[in-house]
Amino acid sequence: MSYFEQFMQANQAYVALHGQLNLPLKPKTRVAIVTCMDSRLHVAQALGLALGDAHILRNAGGRVTEDMIRSLVISQQQMGTREIVVLHHTDCGAQTFENGPFQEYLKEELGVDVSDQDFLPFQDIEESVREDMQLLIESPLIPDDVIISGAIYDVDTGSMTVVEL
Amino acid sequence: MSYFEQFMQANQAYVALHGQLNLPLKPKTRVAIVTCMDSRLHVAQALGLALGDAHILRNAGGRVTEDMIRSLVISQQQMGTREIVVLHHTDCGAQTFENGPFQEYLKEELGVDVSDQDFLPFQDIEESVREDMQLLIESPLIPDDVIISGAIYDVDTGSMTVVEL
Repeated sequence: MSYFEQFMQANQAYVALHGQLNLPLKPKTRVAIVTCMDSRLHVAQALGLALGDAHILRNAGGRVTEDMIRSLVISQQQMGTREIVVLHHTDCGAQTFENGPFQEYLKEELGVDVSDQDFLPFQDIEESVREDMQLLIESPLIPDDVIISGAIYDVDTGSMTVVEL
Repeated sequence: MSYFEQFMQANQAYVALHGQLNLPLKPKTRVAIVTCMDSRLHVAQALGLALGDAHILRNAGGRVTEDMIRSLVISQQQMGTREIVVLHHTDCGAQTFENGPFQEYLKEELGVDVSDQDFLPFQDIEESVREDMQLLIESPLIPDDVIISGAIYDVDTGSMTVVEL
């Protein structure tokens, strides 16, 4: 059985617990959480979110990219969110490589020239959170009255620590 | 109390349940799930994922963008994932607007010219899943032997339905 088939089977059990809901499209807390794809972070559980509470946006590193801004603009302008939390974490995959060698590896492994692409690695987690908070503050597409917070999640303990700008 | 402060407080209760873990960086199932930021979808619960099981990538619509490909390349080449699930859902925010009027609204509301930006709205969910599966299949950065599946999540019932290419 493929993992996809296993997920479909697990979903059948979930449906029984879920029941018929009719939650609105707009998130209740009006918060959007920008975080990493990491498998050891289950955002809803870690932050105590109920279904319908908040938008959860995740890419490699939890970085504020053009696509993240696209998503946040839709989140804010179509669905009314007014607060953003940037949440990076310890032991991140984005800390395991650097652009140059990774680009060379991809050229060899996949035969694709990605020498102009920034894969957005980082070394210092606090710094990466601040950098991404700053990008949000500076973006003309994010209104000035949107509240922006930052934190680091510890994948070993599950605990979050605030990062001040 | 801001929602961020509430999340930090809820996290303290989570830490007690979490305990000290030492899960590896590489996801156990070697699956990456590409899905939407929607607040009514809690991916781990809906698919029966344990901590450490799978990468979860989320943007507005669950669309395969350049940033999504960046993240998947890191997921696959640095952390060994070999399977992708594209999961869109009913009643999506990406179905609530069209590029032209949205671009005009942003020009008026924020004073920013985004007339060249595609915000990736869609009307038909099955079609958007197939379109994004196809983008993955065609990407030179995604190896041919990566298994690609698609599904739709029903936000009212919690149930997933397979989408065949």
